[in-house]
Amino acid sequence: MNRITLAHGDGGELAHQLIQEVFVEAFGSNKEAMFDAAVFSAQGKLAVSTDSFVVKPMFFNGGNIGKIAVCGTVNDIAVSGAKPLYLTCGFIIEEGLLVSDLKKIVQSMAEEAKKAGVQIVAGDTKVVEKGSCDGVYINTTGIGIVTHELTPDAIEEGDSILISGTIGDHGISILVDRGELGLTANIASDCASLHGLIEEAQKTGAIKMMRDPTRGGLATTLVEICEDFHVTMEIEEQAIPLKDEVHGACDILGFDPLYLANEGKAIFIVKKEQEQQVLKALQRHPLGVDAAVIGHVVGNDGKLLLRTPIGSTRRMHRLSGMLLPRIC
Amino acid sequence: MNRITLAHGDGGELAHQLIQEVFVEAFGSNKEAMFDAAVFSAQGKLAVSTDSFVVKPMFFNGGNIGKIAVCGTVNDIAVSGAKPLYLTCGFIIEEGLLVSDLKKIVQSMAEEAKKAGVQIVAGDTKVVEKGSCDGVYINTTGIGIVTHELTPDAIEEGDSILISGTIGDHGISILVDRGELGLTANIASDCASLHGLIEEAQKTGAIKMMRDPTRGGLATTLVEICEDFHVTMEIEEQAIPLKDEVHGACDILGFDPLYLANEGKAIFIVKKEQEQQVLKALQRHPLGVDAAVIGHVVGNDGKLLLRTPIGSTRRMHRLSGMLLPRIC
Repeated sequence: MNRITLAHGDGGELAHQLIQEVFVEAFGSNKEAMFDAAVFSAQGKLAVSTDSFVVKPMFFNGGNIGKIAVCGTVNDIAVSGAKPLYLTCGFIIEEGLLVSDLKKIVQSMAEEAKKAGVQIVAGDTKVVEKGSCDGVYINTTGIGIVTHELTPDAIEEGDSILISGTIGDHGISILVDRGELGLTANIASDCASLHGLIEEAQKTGAIKMMRDPTRGGLATTLVEICEDFHVTMEIEEQAIPLKDEVHGACDILGFDPLYLANEGKAIFIVKKEQEQQVLKALQRHPLGVDAAVIGHVVGNDGKLLLRTPIGSTRRMHRLSGMLLPRIC
Repeated sequence: MNRITLAHGDGGELAHQLIQEVFVEAFGSNKEAMFDAAVFSAQGKLAVSTDSFVVKPMFFNGGNIGKIAVCGTVNDIAVSGAKPLYLTCGFIIEEGLLVSDLKKIVQSMAEEAKKAGVQIVAGDTKVVEKGSCDGVYINTTGIGIVTHELTPDAIEEGDSILISGTIGDHGISILVDRGELGLTANIASDCASLHGLIEEAQKTGAIKMMRDPTRGGLATTLVEICEDFHVTMEIEEQAIPLKDEVHGACDILGFDPLYLANEGKAIFIVKKEQEQQVLKALQRHPLGVDAAVIGHVVGNDGKLLLRTPIGSTRRMHRLSGMLLPRIC
């Protein structure tokens, strides 16, 4: 078995072999695999999140589509104040995909799930004809148990806005790896599971709201928070952590890093009095060394304002007209 | 907005509009949409199942990819002895898809979810370039609460095997609708949510095991049960319900209906003494009028045996070599 064929997706003998040799090999076997659904016990408030991943290329500097599929959903659960516990994964595979590539991707998922302490409990595999998909697309759905209630309704003037590290790394890394821009730069994606970092930050008891700024970037995510919870935020452009390489690439390409995707960063809105405490908690964690306070809540009319280095203030809107397809 | 563009998938302004105009319009809005994960309360044993749908064509006699995406996951949860409660959905959409087609699909999902009593709690939308997907692919992940513990370990010699209706309807319907076979026949897919039928059957207290025979058909599903639980089953070919049109199409095309996909049928393994009670319970339900006892458990060496009308017995294996891609 060298390449995936259509028969690997028809539910018969070859599908059975593929599941045994690729998925059971990496994820392990559980009795649940004998049923149409996996069963687990739960008590309390659960958080559920789903995400489909179509990132191009499948393998990039700092990760691959399998790693990002686990990290992305783990992070969506974690920023909701929940501890990620279970993950399902659905694969749509293109006929002709190298089985060795699929194995690498699945292995990354197994490793990342282990790191994040989540159990892969259910899966599904479909195969489509060559040209009806691009390599492999992966859906992951995560279930976690809520450990900290977020209190977005308690956000008030003065609250501080923090980010856990540099922005735009993932977006630029993917654009460079696509090779379409004639740009060579050694920028790795920040793709990482943030459950551990978030757990540390939550110990402060100061967090009112968290989000991970993926597609649409920091600006779009903040605009959504501003609109959904009727708050106005002002962020300081100079306070936003940015790698020199990302800054340089953005200058050359004409991209605004505020709109570039991140896959290992979280935004925190916290009580002003505890901003330094949260900042230190983040900076003590390997994934939060570049954490920074980037702004504050200044009102309640649902706007995002950016203060530039020269002291002017402009309103920011959702990402619009900057075409970055298949970034995750 | 007439056709889907890449900008509908970048997480920015157009993505926001698409979610409002297509998804919120059909599924309704909940406060959860403001967070990265939806939160619900649970207590007890939960069942979770995931499935990606790539059925071709998107619209077929008896349903569409949206309807099948809801029914398929509802059924996987229901045959696990659980009541389906929540559903997540992840869409991968091809650039150029008619927004009107997407709306029809999403509307079907909303209707089917309502019928099945499940709430769509989380979603995700990705857009890929023209040629990198075929219309739309949908992942659904379902969560249900276990209401009846199945007891596959209690399966024993003599137990009866029932099917809730005719087999192969979905498989033949899809093949006809693809128009590749030069066959015109009015066969509708059996695509349906089985939670109600299964609830009626469960009231008898006689059910040890259930499965829905989708990809791979009745034979492959029974082979899996035989292997996983070390039981040998003998089924009677003549007892298996089959529509004349499906029988005819199979004769012409050279397909074995035992290996054709079903999307609205369930297999039940029940105590022999109660087989008639379960049969009557099934037949009283609109989705079970053609239900039948199709065989019995005859041993424990993990084989599926088929007794033909002329009295011979042959061993059945998993689907192999009958290429039916993208059937669901």
